[in-house]
Amino acid sequence: MALTMIGVFDSGIGGLIVLKALIQNIPDYDFIYFGDTARTPYGTKNPNTIIDYTLEGIEFLLSLGVKMVVLAGNTVASLATDSVQTRFNVPVIEFITPAVKLAVKTSRYQRIGLIGTPATVMSGAYEKKIHNENPATKVYSAACPLLVPLIEEGWHRKPETKMIVKKCLIPLKARQIDTLILGCTHYTLLTATIQAKAGKQVNLIDPTGCIADSLKTFLSKHREVDKTLSKNSILRLVMSDVTARVEKLAGSILKRNFPIDVCSR
Amino acid sequence: MALTMIGVFDSGIGGLIVLKALIQNIPDYDFIYFGDTARTPYGTKNPNTIIDYTLEGIEFLLSLGVKMVVLAGNTVASLATDSVQTRFNVPVIEFITPAVKLAVKTSRYQRIGLIGTPATVMSGAYEKKIHNENPATKVYSAACPLLVPLIEEGWHRKPETKMIVKKCLIPLKARQIDTLILGCTHYTLLTATIQAKAGKQVNLIDPTGCIADSLKTFLSKHREVDKTLSKNSILRLVMSDVTARVEKLAGSILKRNFPIDVCSR
Repeated sequence: MALTMIGVFDSGIGGLIVLKALIQNIPDYDFIYFGDTARTPYGTKNPNTIIDYTLEGIEFLLSLGVKMVVLAGNTVASLATDSVQTRFNVPVIEFITPAVKLAVKTSRYQRIGLIGTPATVMSGAYEKKIHNENPATKVYSAACPLLVPLIEEGWHRKPETKMIVKKCLIPLKARQIDTLILGCTHYTLLTATIQAKAGKQVNLIDPTGCIADSLKTFLSKHREVDKTLSKNSILRLVMSDVTARVEKLAGSILKRNFPIDVCSR
Repeated sequence: MALTMIGVFDSGIGGLIVLKALIQNIPDYDFIYFGDTARTPYGTKNPNTIIDYTLEGIEFLLSLGVKMVVLAGNTVASLATDSVQTRFNVPVIEFITPAVKLAVKTSRYQRIGLIGTPATVMSGAYEKKIHNENPATKVYSAACPLLVPLIEEGWHRKPETKMIVKKCLIPLKARQIDTLILGCTHYTLLTATIQAKAGKQVNLIDPTGCIADSLKTFLSKHREVDKTLSKNSILRLVMSDVTARVEKLAGSILKRNFPIDVCSR
């Protein structure tokens, strides 16, 4: 049996933050990442478009021989998890379910906030899963579409970004949330600012931090999958569009420069 | 002979600002607008990707029967004008050439600034055309990728946007530019802020303001094209992705709600 890599998919470069968590936690495994940078961002687009693009992305990874996939973006995981599971007969790992379990388990007053892209917030995916865990939990959401471009331009620490974060959180603070889910991988890079503006009494839940445990748990329960996976610490990056900007962002997230292959569109 | 509409193309909704100028100035003509919202934005992507997407967009408009096209975005016009002219045998109207002529003609000290997307700035299209007009003109450029998302989120008048505009213009002000080209259609909606931060001694040139005259001049010189164009004041909008957000943005730019057709991807 040919050994295979784990496929990791996102709409752009944000999923590299997830990939980094995976290679830090299970460094032996081989990964192939596909970011659809030619059509990024997904988070302001129509749900049907997001589902179609995700199915195309997963199909591309499967054509490269992967036998399991990680959905490494919140927009993708919120909108397309069910479609991917229905269409393809491979294990699918996503981080919304474990993040929701953690949030509901640790929330003191069951008042949970969510920030993410417009598509993630409007999908209601987090809300639905939270209510599956605890129907009494109050969920308050805010779309913060400006944070992704600010982070991608390297403006993390600028005063304008702090002011915008503060404004995004006003409606959630007014609801006295005790827990805040960072429903967009990019926001991991803004954790300190978000914590400062949300207030120290608010517990931040970063789904990115749940992914490695989720994958490890799956592999320990499914030895038949685990034994087919190659473990040579190989990492391959593929994107649908590569620019100097993408290479720089990828290098700054992974803290190392990797060659990026371009897939034909 | 069947009468035909004028095709107007852009990567997203920004070109609606150009379309608005066209229908205000030549209201009798029929227009069909195609915005590639499913893959927007183009301005941070690779030149080859931008050219491929533009050729596909123009091909789609031609399949609907248009006999001439307006390139209604700066990124598209900067990168793909030559490719469109080479590939398709139809008249192509763009606004960079007339904007450059106006800038060079009116600049007092021949010190011209340009702001736009990374792709527009890096293409060197404006710079090359300026030097064709006057090789001695100094050109200074700055990419301002944050302004498009701020404008699309309706943050035109917020203090954060004014602070970011000020920072974008610092390198150009340091070069003592006397003229500033607004090399992105979205910036038309930020004119007052840009003028305030650039200083009143700086003359702003908005290419969007050149498009109607450019088209009128072309039609007066090419009566054989003009007589094939239908003139029933019909406007049709087609986008590759439609969301409530896109409909709202389109309505706010055109000051009227139009139905938007979705083309299949």
